[in-house]
Amino acid sequence: MIRINPHYPKLQASYLFADIARRVSAFQQQHPDKHLIRLGIGDVTQPLPPACIAALHQATDEMANAANFRGYGPEQGYDFLRQAIATHDFQARGAQIDADEIFVSDGAKSDTGNIQEIFAQDVRVAIPDPVYPVYVDTNVMAGRTDAAVDGRYPGFVYLDSTAANGYVPALPSEPVDLIYLCFPNNPTGATATRAQLAAWVEYARQNRALILFDAAYEAFIRDPELPHSIYEIPGAREVAIEFRSYSKTAGFTGLRCAYTVVPKECMAWDDSGQPVALHALWMRRHTTKFNGVSYPVQRAAEAVYSAEGQQQVRALIDGYLDNARTIRRAFEAMGFACTGGENAPYVWIDAQRDAWAFFDLLLHRAGVVCTPGVGFGRCGQQHVRISAFNSAENVANALQRIRQALQ
Amino acid sequence: MIRINPHYPKLQASYLFADIARRVSAFQQQHPDKHLIRLGIGDVTQPLPPACIAALHQATDEMANAANFRGYGPEQGYDFLRQAIATHDFQARGAQIDADEIFVSDGAKSDTGNIQEIFAQDVRVAIPDPVYPVYVDTNVMAGRTDAAVDGRYPGFVYLDSTAANGYVPALPSEPVDLIYLCFPNNPTGATATRAQLAAWVEYARQNRALILFDAAYEAFIRDPELPHSIYEIPGAREVAIEFRSYSKTAGFTGLRCAYTVVPKECMAWDDSGQPVALHALWMRRHTTKFNGVSYPVQRAAEAVYSAEGQQQVRALIDGYLDNARTIRRAFEAMGFACTGGENAPYVWIDAQRDAWAFFDLLLHRAGVVCTPGVGFGRCGQQHVRISAFNSAENVANALQRIRQALQ
Repeated sequence: MIRINPHYPKLQASYLFADIARRVSAFQQQHPDKHLIRLGIGDVTQPLPPACIAALHQATDEMANAANFRGYGPEQGYDFLRQAIATHDFQARGAQIDADEIFVSDGAKSDTGNIQEIFAQDVRVAIPDPVYPVYVDTNVMAGRTDAAVDGRYPGFVYLDSTAANGYVPALPSEPVDLIYLCFPNNPTGATATRAQLAAWVEYARQNRALILFDAAYEAFIRDPELPHSIYEIPGAREVAIEFRSYSKTAGFTGLRCAYTVVPKECMAWDDSGQPVALHALWMRRHTTKFNGVSYPVQRAAEAVYSAEGQQQVRALIDGYLDNARTIRRAFEAMGFACTGGENAPYVWIDAQRDAWAFFDLLLHRAGVVCTPGVGFGRCGQQHVRISAFNSAENVANALQRIRQALQ
Repeated sequence: MIRINPHYPKLQASYLFADIARRVSAFQQQHPDKHLIRLGIGDVTQPLPPACIAALHQATDEMANAANFRGYGPEQGYDFLRQAIATHDFQARGAQIDADEIFVSDGAKSDTGNIQEIFAQDVRVAIPDPVYPVYVDTNVMAGRTDAAVDGRYPGFVYLDSTAANGYVPALPSEPVDLIYLCFPNNPTGATATRAQLAAWVEYARQNRALILFDAAYEAFIRDPELPHSIYEIPGAREVAIEFRSYSKTAGFTGLRCAYTVVPKECMAWDDSGQPVALHALWMRRHTTKFNGVSYPVQRAAEAVYSAEGQQQVRALIDGYLDNARTIRRAFEAMGFACTGGENAPYVWIDAQRDAWAFFDLLLHRAGVVCTPGVGFGRCGQQHVRISAFNSAENVANALQRIRQALQ
């Protein structure tokens, strides 16, 4: 008899986005003439940079004739892209990462979801709260916990991110093996200083732990003091895997391209206590279960690193950063404590009340959709996330409506 | 201490393609002026159909302005593509599959590799020999066996495909839960009749087993008597998941698009003996660990179903099928027993000697690269696979050289 993976039913049904959709739909039925402004989902709204569009057209033309046609590419990505990544994203910032340590993929969601496969089932997992739900759910599906109790899975070590610690969690007080970190953070927009990341790297080195560092929002960093990559921290090559994405950097959410960095010195241990290079393990996983990113999309990603591409991407992100700053200032002026909105596209607002109550208030009185923080974990129970991914005009209108609604 | 997945080291190192590359490279160094003809790897060589090229350009233009820009799409694929698939690939052949039973993905390699995640770890797995290595390796990585003994993993039930059974394996004589089948077959090119598939469906229904049906080469079927989909067999909706791909159908190996069909009636059982719909389980897996296929690529896949697209794809495959027939006839005329080469792009040749010896002979005496069958399993020890994915001219030249070499 064919039986199911017994861990899947442990997953808490995520009603968050379904709940949001239901409430929004009910509101729209009651107010069909009301124009909603959506500042909820973290999806980009602005078109692809012209350099990427040109690259897509050119690569498409190459696929139209046998002389230039490309079939299967290397699963890890084409050298032209891996080399551009190593040079621009790492070596230019003094981080020693080589092209053959880069694994190009179709998304940071896939990579951050799949990476746990290469570790033992009984490793102790540390997960921030609030957090991108994929880190949690994929470890549940792999059988690393039991059914949740009061919204938290037994055995996971939750790293609370609160106003008290500036939304950068403290080092764990109990032993952990696998640590998820994300800076600039989704959902809080918080960033980590060099000293804060160095403390985590030191912890991992002392405890033979491994850091999974999600830097999908790295391109939003403008403060020259903030590290963009964990490999800017000495000693990180041995204890950290980093995830990057073109989704928010260059508007690739619909195009799909990302990458993961696994330095060659990065080790885990087998049952007999021998170190094993994670680069070889991830290579095996990546080449066995994945067949490379679409060739035209890899050319579009390469174009991000051209002189025009860099300029266009910077302008694109500057627009979202202007929105983020505007949102934060507006909420602070209304008396709300906020984090994020600088060096990040999200503003995390202490709503001073139940997250869903604040969501309903913004929806019904201002016609603005946000995301209730409780969807990201217990620490978000009194917070909402507002996203800067919209036009400046929509953001200005939304804030004006919110100001009126809250007066 | 962070520890590795203890099942990864059980994987047999696959030296097949590395070995081929090494032997080819050594030969080329010795004979730098010799033009090699590659009939080894199953990768397409002809350009994308013009209808797909046009769709890629148009979708790229849409991404260039905010009004038409598309960010995240549904993880399961856009409705325009899922509806076209359901209509053309299934309903047109009398198979009742609805659009919401289709999960669009980036490749059949990913899907056939990932699908095992939704099943219990101790299900009994039946795997054909010879076989596409991904089915085996992903079950090893998931911990469903121990280290291999004499090239076979303990606990797996191997379904031998030999001349004696016409390369269509017999039903297993011991109980199994999860059955991998692939028709038209990679690597043998064998096809399964309606009666043969019906016997497997009946077996699965009687034994509460599940069939994973890989139909990646379906488009090569020209014999009107042969089923294209397992859902043409009555009763299959309850016991089969089917995998399709645009890679070989429309030359998408470098573009990346495929899909998986999970009918709503398809069940597996939980530990308390209750049936669970696999559609819901795969939906959870797909939406948690995957973020959809590139939008322009989905538009290119949609174009396959346009009137011009259908004509162009048929012409493309007709070319490869001409090659396949030519290869099979040539080898049969030289006295070799063959299967495949009709309704499939591969010819599986009984070399009447060690596969590597025959590989070396074709390489050194004819300058032709094939694939030694032993790379696909023990049953391939005396076989080679020759692929039809090349130009008619190269195939003709290769066969002439082989004829001279074997005289």
